[in-house]
Amino acid sequence: MENAIGTTRWVIPEGYIPRESHGPAPELTSHEAFCVINAGERAAHLRVTVFYTDREPGGPYLLEVPARRTRHFRFNDLEAPEPIPVGTPYSSLIESDLPVVVQHTRLDSRQSENALMTTIAYPCERAASD
Amino acid sequence: MENAIGTTRWVIPEGYIPRESHGPAPELTSHEAFCVINAGERAAHLRVTVFYTDREPGGPYLLEVPARRTRHFRFNDLEAPEPIPVGTPYSSLIESDLPVVVQHTRLDSRQSENALMTTIAYPCERAASD
Amino acid sequence: MENAIGTTRWVIPEGYIPRESHGPAPELTSHEAFCVINAGERAAHLRVTVFYTDREPGGPYLLEVPARRTRHFRFNDLEAPEPIPVGTPYSSLIESDLPVVVQHTRLDSRQSENALMTTIAYPCERAASD
Amino acid sequence: MENAIGTTRWVIPEGYIPRESHGPAPELTSHEAFCVINAGERAAHLRVTVFYTDREPGGPYLLEVPARRTRHFRFNDLEAPEPIPVGTPYSSLIESDLPVVVQHTRLDSRQSENALMTTIAYPCERAASD
Repeated sequence: MENAIGTTRWVIPEGYIPRESHGPAPELTSHEAFCVINAGERAAHLRVTVFYTDREPGGPYLLEVPARRTRHFRFNDLEAPEPIPVGTPYSSLIESDLPVVVQHTRLDSRQSENALMTTIAYPCERAASD
Repeated sequence: MENAIGTTRWVIPEGYIPRESHGPAPELTSHEAFCVINAGERAAHLRVTVFYTDREPGGPYLLEVPARRTRHFRFNDLEAPEPIPVGTPYSSLIESDLPVVVQHTRLDSRQSENALMTTIAYPCERAASD
Repeated sequence: MENAIGTTRWVIPEGYIPRESHGPAPELTSHEAFCVINAGERAAHLRVTVFYTDREPGGPYLLEVPARRTRHFRFNDLEAPEPIPVGTPYSSLIESDLPVVVQHTRLDSRQSENALMTTIAYPCERAASD
Repeated sequence: MENAIGTTRWVIPEGYIPRESHGPAPELTSHEAFCVINAGERAAHLRVTVFYTDREPGGPYLLEVPARRTRHFRFNDLEAPEPIPVGTPYSSLIESDLPVVVQHTRLDSRQSENALMTTIAYPCERAASD
Protein backbone atom coordinates (compact mmCIF):
# COMPACT_ATOMS: atom_id res chain seq x y z
CA MET A 1 0.00 0.00 0.00
CA GLU A 2 1.27 3.43 -0.99
CA ASN A 3 1.82 6.29 1.40
CA ALA A 4 3.53 8.65 -1.04
CA ILE A 5 3.20 12.42 -0.53
CA GLY A 6 3.88 15.30 -2.88
CA THR A 7 4.36 15.51 -6.60
CA THR A 8 6.87 14.46 -9.25
CA ARG A 9 8.25 17.73 -10.61
CA TRP A 10 9.76 20.65 -8.70
CA VAL A 11 11.44 23.86 -9.81
CA ILE A 12 13.93 26.10 -7.96
CA PRO A 13 14.53 29.28 -10.02
CA GLU A 14 17.19 30.69 -7.66
CA GLY A 15 20.60 29.08 -7.50
CA TYR A 16 24.04 30.43 -6.64
CA ILE A 17 26.91 28.75 -4.83
CA PRO A 18 28.94 31.47 -3.08
CA ARG A 19 32.69 31.39 -3.82
CA GLU A 20 33.79 31.86 -0.25
CA SER A 21 33.02 30.67 3.25
CA HIS A 22 33.80 31.46 6.87
CA GLY A 23 33.52 29.00 9.74
CA PRO A 24 34.19 25.28 10.26
CA ALA A 25 33.70 22.98 7.24
CA PRO A 26 31.57 21.25 6.17
CA GLU A 27 28.83 22.45 8.51
CA LEU A 28 29.29 26.17 7.87
CA THR A 29 30.66 25.97 4.32
CA SER A 30 28.55 28.18 2.05
CA HIS A 31 26.15 25.87 0.31
CA GLU A 32 22.95 25.61 -1.64
CA ALA A 33 20.82 22.61 -0.77
CA PHE A 34 17.61 20.91 -1.77
CA CYS A 35 15.95 18.72 0.81
CA VAL A 36 13.79 15.86 -0.43
CA ILE A 37 11.38 13.74 1.55
CA ASN A 38 10.11 10.44 0.23
CA ALA A 39 7.33 9.31 2.56
CA GLY A 40 6.37 6.41 0.32
CA GLU A 41 7.09 2.70 0.39
CA ARG A 42 9.43 2.55 -2.60
CA ALA A 43 12.71 4.29 -3.45
CA ALA A 44 12.32 7.47 -5.54
CA HIS A 45 14.72 8.15 -8.39
CA LEU A 46 15.52 11.79 -9.08
CA ARG A 47 16.75 13.42 -12.25
CA VAL A 48 18.08 16.95 -11.73
CA THR A 49 18.60 19.36 -14.64
CA VAL A 50 20.49 22.62 -14.10
CA PHE A 51 19.74 25.71 -16.21
CA TYR A 52 22.25 28.48 -16.82
CA THR A 53 22.14 32.00 -18.26
CA ASP A 54 24.41 31.51 -21.24
CA ARG A 55 24.75 27.83 -22.07
CA GLU A 56 22.67 24.73 -22.59
CA PRO A 57 21.30 23.01 -19.46
CA GLY A 58 23.58 20.64 -17.53
CA GLY A 59 22.87 17.21 -16.17
CA PRO A 60 21.00 15.05 -15.67
CA TYR A 61 22.25 14.39 -12.16
CA LEU A 62 20.83 11.06 -10.99
CA LEU A 63 20.02 10.66 -7.32
CA GLU A 64 17.98 8.33 -5.13
CA VAL A 65 15.91 8.78 -1.99
CA PRO A 66 15.09 5.48 -0.30
CA ALA A 67 11.60 4.62 0.95
CA ARG A 68 10.59 6.50 4.13
CA ARG A 69 13.75 8.59 4.11
CA THR A 70 14.89 12.16 3.60
CA ARG A 71 17.99 13.32 1.75
CA HIS A 72 19.44 16.82 2.07
CA PHE A 73 21.49 17.21 -1.12
CA ARG A 74 24.01 20.01 -1.63
CA PHE A 75 24.32 21.36 -5.17
CA ASN A 76 28.00 21.88 -4.26
CA ASP A 77 28.44 18.12 -4.07
CA LEU A 78 26.99 17.18 -7.47
CA GLU A 79 29.84 15.79 -9.53
CA ALA A 80 28.64 13.72 -12.47
CA PRO A 81 28.27 14.55 -15.30
CA GLU A 82 29.95 17.83 -14.16
CA PRO A 83 30.20 20.03 -11.04
CA ILE A 84 28.12 23.23 -10.93
CA PRO A 85 30.51 26.20 -11.11
CA VAL A 86 30.65 28.48 -8.05
CA GLY A 87 29.72 32.16 -8.35
CA THR A 88 27.35 31.41 -11.25
CA PRO A 89 23.58 31.94 -11.38
CA TYR A 90 21.57 28.80 -12.12
CA SER A 91 18.11 27.25 -11.75
CA SER A 92 17.16 23.63 -11.20
CA LEU A 93 14.43 21.25 -12.25
CA ILE A 94 13.98 18.17 -10.07
CA GLU A 95 11.99 15.30 -11.56
CA SER A 96 11.12 12.15 -9.64
CA ASP A 97 9.54 8.86 -10.66
CA LEU A 98 7.47 8.90 -7.45
CA PRO A 99 5.87 11.71 -5.43
CA VAL A 100 8.26 13.65 -3.16
CA VAL A 101 8.38 17.11 -1.56
CA VAL A 102 11.32 19.48 -2.12
CA GLN A 103 12.58 22.49 -0.13
CA HIS A 104 15.39 24.87 -1.14
CA THR A 105 17.87 26.28 1.40
CA ARG A 106 21.01 28.38 1.13
CA LEU A 107 23.58 28.94 3.88
CA ASP A 108 25.81 31.84 2.94
CA SER A 109 28.96 32.33 5.01
CA ARG A 110 30.81 34.66 2.66
CA GLN A 111 30.98 37.21 5.43
CA SER A 112 31.92 36.34 8.99
CA GLU A 113 28.34 35.65 10.09
CA ASN A 114 26.17 33.21 8.19
CA ALA A 115 22.88 34.02 6.49
CA LEU A 116 20.06 31.61 5.72
CA MET A 117 17.16 31.50 3.33
CA THR A 118 14.61 28.84 2.46
CA THR A 119 11.45 28.18 0.48
CA ILE A 120 9.37 25.21 -0.54
CA ALA A 121 10.23 24.61 -4.21
CA TYR A 122 7.58 25.21 -6.88
CA PRO A 123 5.49 22.07 -7.40
CA CYS A 124 4.60 21.46 -11.01
CA GLU A 125 2.62 18.48 -12.20
CA ARG A 126 3.75 16.94 -15.44
CA ALA A 127 1.28 17.95 -18.17
CA ALA A 128 -0.53 15.17 -20.01
CA SER A 129 1.19 16.14 -23.25
CA ASP A 130 4.74 15.86 -21.87
CA MET B 1 -20.61 26.55 13.08
CA GLU B 2 -17.14 25.84 11.76
CA ASN B 3 -14.59 28.50 10.94
CA ALA B 4 -11.64 26.19 10.28
CA ILE B 5 -8.94 27.29 7.81
CA GLY B 6 -6.24 25.31 6.04
CA THR B 7 -5.75 21.63 5.44
CA THR B 8 -4.95 18.48 7.41
CA ARG B 9 -1.53 17.38 6.14
CA TRP B 10 1.67 19.45 5.92
CA VAL B 11 5.22 18.55 4.97
CA ILE B 12 8.52 20.28 5.89
CA PRO B 13 11.39 18.64 3.95
CA GLU B 14 14.15 20.70 5.63
CA GLY B 15 15.03 20.05 9.24
CA TYR B 16 18.24 20.51 11.22
CA ILE B 17 18.74 21.56 14.82
CA PRO B 18 22.12 23.31 15.08
CA ARG B 19 24.42 21.96 17.80
CA GLU B 20 25.46 25.32 19.14
CA SER B 21 24.03 28.70 20.07
CA HIS B 22 25.10 32.22 20.95
CA GLY B 23 23.01 34.71 22.92
CA PRO B 24 20.52 34.56 25.79
CA ALA B 25 18.46 31.35 26.17
CA PRO B 26 15.80 30.42 25.39
CA GLU B 27 14.95 33.33 23.09
CA LEU B 28 18.14 33.16 21.01
CA THR B 29 18.87 29.45 21.38
CA SER B 30 19.28 27.91 17.92
CA HIS B 31 15.98 26.27 17.15
CA GLU B 32 13.78 24.86 14.45
CA ALA B 33 10.10 25.61 14.85
CA PHE B 34 6.75 24.93 13.25
CA CYS B 35 3.98 27.40 13.91
CA VAL B 36 0.42 26.12 13.75
CA ILE B 37 -2.78 28.16 13.67
CA ASN B 38 -6.13 26.58 14.45
CA ALA B 39 -8.78 29.16 13.54
CA GLY B 40 -11.61 26.71 14.11
CA GLU B 41 -14.03 26.14 16.94
CA ARG B 42 -12.64 22.78 18.14
CA ALA B 43 -9.21 21.68 19.37
CA ALA B 44 -6.97 20.18 16.67
CA HIS B 45 -4.91 17.08 17.43
CA LEU B 46 -1.56 16.81 15.64
CA ARG B 47 0.50 13.76 14.87
CA VAL B 48 4.07 14.56 13.82
CA THR B 49 6.29 11.98 12.09
CA VAL B 50 10.01 12.68 11.65
CA PHE B 51 11.95 11.21 8.72
CA TYR B 52 15.69 10.60 8.77
CA THR B 53 18.38 9.74 6.24
CA ASP B 54 19.45 6.39 7.61
CA ARG B 55 16.81 4.97 9.94
CA GLU B 56 13.10 4.36 10.12
CA PRO B 57 10.86 7.39 10.84
CA GLY B 58 10.45 8.51 14.46
CA GLY B 59 7.32 9.47 16.33
CA PRO B 60 4.46 9.95 16.35
CA TYR B 61 4.70 13.07 18.46
CA LEU B 62 1.20 13.95 19.68
CA LEU B 63 0.36 17.61 20.14
CA GLU B 64 -2.75 19.74 20.52
CA VAL B 65 -3.73 23.21 19.36
CA PRO B 66 -6.82 24.52 21.14
CA ALA B 67 -9.70 26.19 19.31
CA ARG B 68 -8.92 29.74 18.09
CA ARG B 69 -5.31 29.50 19.21
CA THR B 70 -1.80 29.33 17.75
CA ARG B 71 1.07 27.18 18.98
CA HIS B 72 4.70 27.77 18.00
CA PHE B 73 6.33 24.38 18.61
CA ARG B 74 10.09 23.87 18.69
CA PHE B 75 11.36 20.57 17.32
CA ASN B 76 14.07 20.93 20.00
CA ASP B 77 11.41 20.49 22.67
CA LEU B 78 9.82 17.28 21.39
CA GLU B 79 10.54 14.59 23.95
CA ALA B 80 8.22 11.61 23.64
CA PRO B 81 8.65 9.04 22.23
CA GLU B 82 12.24 10.36 21.75
CA PRO B 83 14.08 13.67 21.28
CA ILE B 84 15.27 14.60 17.77
CA PRO B 85 19.08 14.46 17.72
CA VAL B 86 20.92 17.75 17.10
CA GLY B 87 23.20 18.14 14.08
CA THR B 88 21.14 15.62 12.09
CA PRO B 89 19.16 16.20 8.88
CA TYR B 90 15.47 15.35 9.12
CA SER B 91 12.08 16.06 7.53
CA SER B 92 8.67 16.22 9.15
CA LEU B 93 5.11 15.29 8.31
CA ILE B 94 2.41 17.03 10.34
CA GLU B 95 -1.06 15.48 10.27
CA SER B 96 -4.08 17.06 11.96
CA ASP B 97 -7.61 15.85 12.57
CA LEU B 98 -8.91 19.32 11.69
CA PRO B 99 -7.75 21.96 9.21
CA VAL B 100 -4.76 24.06 10.32
CA VAL B 101 -2.02 26.11 8.64
CA VAL B 102 1.69 25.42 9.29
CA GLN B 103 4.81 27.59 8.83
CA HIS B 104 8.43 26.50 9.27
CA THR B 105 11.06 28.76 10.86
CA ARG B 106 14.69 28.30 11.87
CA LEU B 107 16.70 30.64 14.08
CA ASP B 108 20.38 29.77 13.80
CA SER B 109 22.74 31.34 16.34
CA ARG B 110 25.72 29.07 15.80
CA GLN B 111 27.79 32.12 14.97
CA SER B 112 27.68 35.32 17.00
CA GLU B 113 24.87 36.88 14.97
CA ASN B 114 21.62 35.03 14.40
CA ALA B 115 20.18 34.04 11.02
CA LEU B 116 16.54 33.41 10.20
CA MET B 117 14.65 31.53 7.52
CA THR B 118 10.99 30.72 7.04
CA THR B 119 8.49 29.22 4.61
CA ILE B 120 4.88 28.13 4.63
CA ALA B 121 4.99 24.32 4.84
CA TYR B 122 3.81 22.24 1.87
CA PRO B 123 0.06 21.62 2.10
CA CYS B 124 -0.93 18.17 1.00
CA GLU B 125 -4.48 16.88 1.06
CA ARG B 126 -4.87 13.28 2.04
CA ALA B 127 -5.61 11.27 -1.08
CA ALA B 128 -8.85 9.32 -1.25
CA SER B 129 -6.94 6.05 -1.33
CA ASP B 130 -4.99 6.71 1.88
CA MET C 1 -13.14 46.52 -15.94
CA GLU C 2 -11.46 44.60 -13.15
CA ASN C 3 -7.78 43.76 -12.98
CA ALA C 4 -7.71 42.31 -9.49
CA ILE C 5 -5.12 39.61 -8.66
CA GLY C 6 -4.94 37.15 -5.80
CA THR C 7 -7.48 35.94 -3.30
CA THR C 8 -9.45 37.26 -0.32
CA ARG C 9 -8.12 35.30 2.66
CA TRP C 10 -4.51 34.86 3.77
CA VAL C 11 -2.94 33.22 6.81
CA ILE C 12 0.47 33.82 8.46
CA PRO C 13 1.02 31.21 11.20
CA GLU C 14 4.34 32.69 12.39
CA GLY C 15 4.35 35.96 14.28
CA TYR C 16 6.72 37.42 16.86
CA ILE C 17 7.83 41.02 17.38
CA PRO C 18 11.33 40.95 18.94
CA ARG C 19 11.71 43.02 22.10
CA GLU C 20 14.97 44.65 21.13
CA SER C 21 16.68 46.29 18.17
CA HIS C 22 20.07 47.49 17.03
CA GLY C 23 20.66 50.11 14.34
CA PRO C 24 18.98 53.31 13.16
CA ALA C 25 15.18 53.56 13.65
CA PRO C 26 12.77 53.09 12.02
CA GLU C 27 14.52 51.40 9.10
CA LEU C 28 16.41 48.84 11.17
CA THR C 29 13.99 48.54 14.10
CA SER C 30 13.08 44.86 14.58
CA HIS C 31 9.73 44.43 12.91
CA GLU C 32 7.27 41.96 11.51
CA ALA C 33 5.53 43.07 8.34
CA PHE C 34 2.90 41.97 5.88
CA CYS C 35 3.06 43.44 2.41
CA VAL C 36 -0.17 43.67 0.45
CA ILE C 37 -0.62 44.42 -3.23
CA ASN C 38 -3.96 45.51 -4.63
CA ALA C 39 -3.63 45.44 -8.41
CA GLY C 40 -7.34 46.10 -8.94
CA GLU C 41 -9.33 49.19 -9.79
CA ARG C 42 -11.02 49.66 -6.41
CA ALA C 43 -9.76 50.11 -2.85
CA ALA C 44 -9.49 46.87 -0.84
CA HIS C 45 -10.59 46.83 2.79
CA LEU C 46 -8.67 44.49 5.09
CA ARG C 47 -9.74 42.96 8.35
CA VAL C 48 -6.85 41.46 10.35
CA THR C 49 -7.44 39.03 13.23
CA VAL C 50 -4.55 38.08 15.52
CA PHE C 51 -4.43 34.68 17.24
CA TYR C 52 -2.54 34.02 20.47
CA THR C 53 -1.51 30.97 22.47
CA ASP C 54 -3.44 31.64 25.65
CA ARG C 55 -6.22 34.16 25.04
CA GLU C 56 -9.04 34.86 22.62
CA PRO C 57 -8.11 36.36 19.23
CA GLY C 58 -7.53 40.13 19.04
CA GLY C 59 -8.77 42.61 16.48
CA PRO C 60 -10.19 43.18 14.03
CA TYR C 61 -7.64 45.66 12.77
CA LEU C 62 -9.18 47.56 9.85
CA LEU C 63 -6.87 48.67 7.05
CA GLU C 64 -7.18 49.87 3.48
CA VAL C 65 -5.11 49.40 0.35
CA PRO C 66 -6.07 51.86 -2.41
CA ALA C 67 -6.57 50.78 -6.01
CA ARG C 68 -3.31 50.00 -7.88
CA ARG C 69 -1.22 50.45 -4.74
CA THR C 70 0.87 48.41 -2.30
CA ARG C 71 1.01 48.83 1.46
CA HIS C 72 3.76 47.35 3.64
CA PHE C 73 2.16 47.17 7.08
CA ARG C 74 4.14 46.55 10.28
CA PHE C 75 2.39 44.52 12.95
CA ASN C 76 4.35 46.74 15.38
CA ASP C 77 2.30 49.73 14.24
CA LEU C 78 -1.19 48.27 14.70
CA GLU C 79 -2.83 50.25 17.49
CA ALA C 80 -6.61 49.90 17.49
CA PRO C 81 -8.31 48.06 19.07
CA GLU C 82 -5.02 47.21 20.89
CA PRO C 83 -1.29 46.92 20.12
CA ILE C 84 0.21 43.43 19.68
CA PRO C 85 2.51 42.74 22.64
CA VAL C 86 6.23 42.30 21.90
CA GLY C 87 8.00 39.04 22.71
CA THR C 88 4.75 37.08 22.25
CA PRO C 89 3.98 34.36 19.68
CA TYR C 90 0.98 35.09 17.46
CA SER C 91 -0.58 34.20 14.10
CA SER C 92 -2.63 36.37 11.78
CA LEU C 93 -5.58 36.01 9.45
CA ILE C 94 -5.95 38.70 6.79
CA GLU C 95 -9.34 38.97 5.10
CA SER C 96 -10.03 41.36 2.23
CA ASP C 97 -13.21 42.35 0.43
CA LEU C 98 -11.32 42.23 -2.89
CA PRO C 99 -8.52 39.98 -4.18
CA VAL C 100 -5.02 40.89 -2.97
CA VAL C 101 -1.69 39.10 -2.52
CA VAL C 102 0.12 39.02 0.86
CA GLN C 103 3.78 38.38 1.78
CA HIS C 104 5.21 38.04 5.30
CA THR C 105 8.62 39.48 6.25
CA ARG C 106 10.53 39.81 9.51
CA LEU C 107 13.60 41.96 10.10
CA ASP C 108 15.24 40.97 13.35
CA SER C 109 17.93 43.26 14.74
CA ARG C 110 18.05 41.93 18.27
CA GLN C 111 21.72 41.21 17.77
CA SER C 112 24.14 43.65 16.19
CA GLU C 113 23.59 42.36 12.64
CA ASN C 114 20.12 42.08 11.20
CA ALA C 115 18.46 38.89 9.98
CA LEU C 116 15.68 38.61 7.41
CA MET C 117 13.05 36.04 6.53
CA THR C 118 10.12 36.06 4.15
CA THR C 119 7.39 33.89 2.64
CA ILE C 120 4.28 34.35 0.58
CA ALA C 121 1.38 33.98 3.05
CA TYR C 122 -0.93 30.97 2.77
CA PRO C 123 -3.79 31.72 0.36
CA CYS C 124 -7.08 30.31 1.50
CA GLU C 125 -10.32 30.74 -0.40
CA ARG C 126 -13.37 31.31 1.72
CA ALA C 127 -15.37 28.10 1.76
CA ALA C 128 -18.91 28.14 0.44
CA SER C 129 -20.26 27.35 3.89
CA ASP C 130 -18.59 30.32 5.59
CA MET D 1 7.51 19.99 -28.91
CA GLU D 2 6.94 22.15 -25.84
CA ASN D 3 8.62 21.59 -22.49
CA ALA D 4 7.45 24.78 -20.78
CA ILE D 5 7.00 24.75 -16.99
CA GLY D 6 5.16 27.13 -14.71
CA THR D 7 2.61 29.82 -15.33
CA THR D 8 2.37 33.25 -16.97
CA ARG D 9 1.65 35.65 -14.12
CA TRP D 10 3.57 36.07 -10.85
CA VAL D 11 3.26 38.51 -7.99
CA ILE D 12 5.87 39.65 -5.41
CA PRO D 13 4.16 41.84 -2.78
CA GLU D 14 7.39 42.67 -0.90
CA GLY D 15 9.93 44.98 -2.48
CA TYR D 16 12.53 47.33 -1.01
CA ILE D 17 16.00 48.18 -2.26
CA PRO D 18 18.14 49.09 0.77
CA ARG D 19 19.96 52.43 0.49
CA GLU D 20 23.29 51.17 1.73
CA SER D 21 25.66 48.24 1.37
CA HIS D 22 28.75 46.74 2.94
CA GLY D 23 31.17 44.41 1.19
CA PRO D 24 32.60 44.04 -2.32
CA ALA D 25 30.39 45.20 -5.24
CA PRO D 26 28.52 43.94 -7.15
CA GLU D 27 28.36 40.56 -5.43
CA LEU D 28 27.53 41.86 -1.97
CA THR D 29 25.75 45.06 -2.96
CA SER D 30 22.33 45.15 -1.29
CA HIS D 31 19.89 44.02 -3.91
CA GLU D 32 16.43 42.70 -4.57
CA ALA D 33 16.23 40.07 -7.27
CA PHE D 34 13.74 37.94 -9.13
CA CYS D 35 15.01 34.74 -10.68
CA VAL D 36 13.19 33.41 -13.71
CA ILE D 37 13.52 30.00 -15.32
CA ASN D 38 12.26 29.36 -18.83
CA ALA D 39 12.46 25.60 -19.38
CA GLY D 40 10.64 25.82 -22.70
CA GLU D 41 11.77 25.77 -26.30
CA ARG D 42 11.02 29.40 -27.13
CA ALA D 43 12.14 32.72 -25.65
CA ALA D 44 9.79 34.16 -23.01
CA HIS D 45 9.02 37.88 -23.02
CA LEU D 46 8.40 39.46 -19.62
CA ARG D 47 6.49 42.59 -18.76
CA VAL D 48 7.15 43.83 -15.22
CA THR D 49 4.86 46.38 -13.53
CA VAL D 50 5.94 47.99 -10.25
CA PHE D 51 3.35 49.15 -7.69
CA TYR D 52 4.00 51.88 -5.14
CA THR D 53 2.27 53.22 -2.04
CA ASP D 54 1.52 56.72 -3.21
CA ARG D 55 1.73 56.97 -7.00
CA GLU D 56 0.52 55.18 -10.09
CA PRO D 57 2.32 51.96 -11.07
CA GLY D 58 5.61 52.21 -12.99
CA GLY D 59 6.78 50.30 -16.01
CA PRO D 60 6.33 48.23 -17.98
CA TYR D 61 9.88 46.95 -17.85
CA LEU D 62 10.40 44.64 -20.83
CA LEU D 63 12.76 41.70 -20.40
CA GLU D 64 13.53 38.43 -22.15
CA VAL D 65 14.51 34.97 -20.99
CA PRO D 66 15.84 32.81 -23.83
CA ALA D 67 14.73 29.23 -24.35
CA ARG D 68 16.20 26.75 -21.81
CA ARG D 69 17.82 29.54 -19.79
CA THR D 70 17.55 31.26 -16.44
CA ARG D 71 17.92 34.96 -15.74
CA HIS D 72 18.48 36.40 -12.28
CA PHE D 73 17.29 40.01 -12.62
CA ARG D 74 18.04 42.68 -10.04
CA PHE D 75 15.33 45.30 -9.51
CA ASN D 76 18.27 47.66 -8.85
CA ASP D 77 19.31 47.33 -12.48
CA LEU D 78 15.97 48.14 -14.13
CA GLU D 79 16.45 51.42 -15.98
CA ALA D 80 13.79 51.99 -18.63
CA PRO D 81 11.29 53.54 -18.44
CA GLU D 82 12.66 54.65 -15.01
CA PRO D 83 14.80 53.25 -12.18
CA ILE D 84 13.06 52.05 -9.01
CA PRO D 85 13.94 54.44 -6.18
CA VAL D 86 15.96 53.02 -3.26
CA GLY D 87 14.53 53.05 0.25
CA THR D 88 10.97 52.86 -1.11
CA PRO D 89 8.39 50.07 -0.59
CA TYR D 90 7.09 48.53 -3.80
CA SER D 91 5.45 45.37 -5.18
CA SER D 92 5.87 43.77 -8.58
CA LEU D 93 3.74 41.95 -11.11
CA ILE D 94 5.62 39.81 -13.63
CA GLU D 95 3.70 38.75 -16.73
CA SER D 96 5.15 36.43 -19.37
CA ASP D 97 3.92 35.35 -22.79
CA LEU D 98 5.05 31.78 -22.01
CA PRO D 99 5.10 29.73 -18.79
CA VAL D 100 7.99 30.47 -16.43
CA VAL D 101 8.71 30.08 -12.70
CA VAL D 102 9.75 33.06 -10.54
CA GLN D 103 11.56 33.27 -7.17
CA HIS D 104 12.16 36.41 -5.11
CA THR D 105 15.42 36.98 -3.19
CA ARG D 106 16.85 39.88 -1.22
CA LEU D 107 20.45 40.27 -0.09
CA ASP D 108 20.67 43.03 2.49
CA SER D 109 24.14 44.25 3.42
CA ARG D 110 23.13 47.48 5.14
CA GLN D 111 24.92 46.27 8.24
CA SER D 112 28.35 44.69 8.17
CA GLU D 113 27.05 41.13 7.77
CA ASN D 114 24.65 40.27 4.99
CA ALA D 115 21.15 38.88 5.44
CA LEU D 116 19.20 36.81 2.94
CA MET D 117 15.57 36.01 2.33
CA THR D 118 13.74 34.18 -0.44
CA THR D 119 10.35 32.84 -1.50
CA ILE D 120 8.76 31.42 -4.58
CA ALA D 121 6.62 34.26 -6.00
CA TYR D 122 2.82 33.92 -5.98
CA PRO D 123 1.63 32.16 -9.14
CA CYS D 124 -1.55 33.59 -10.52
CA GLU D 125 -3.23 32.33 -13.65
CA ARG D 126 -4.75 34.98 -15.84
CA ALA D 127 -8.51 34.84 -15.43
CA ALA D 128 -10.64 34.15 -18.49
CA SER D 129 -12.20 37.60 -18.24
CA ASP D 130 -8.89 39.51 -18.32
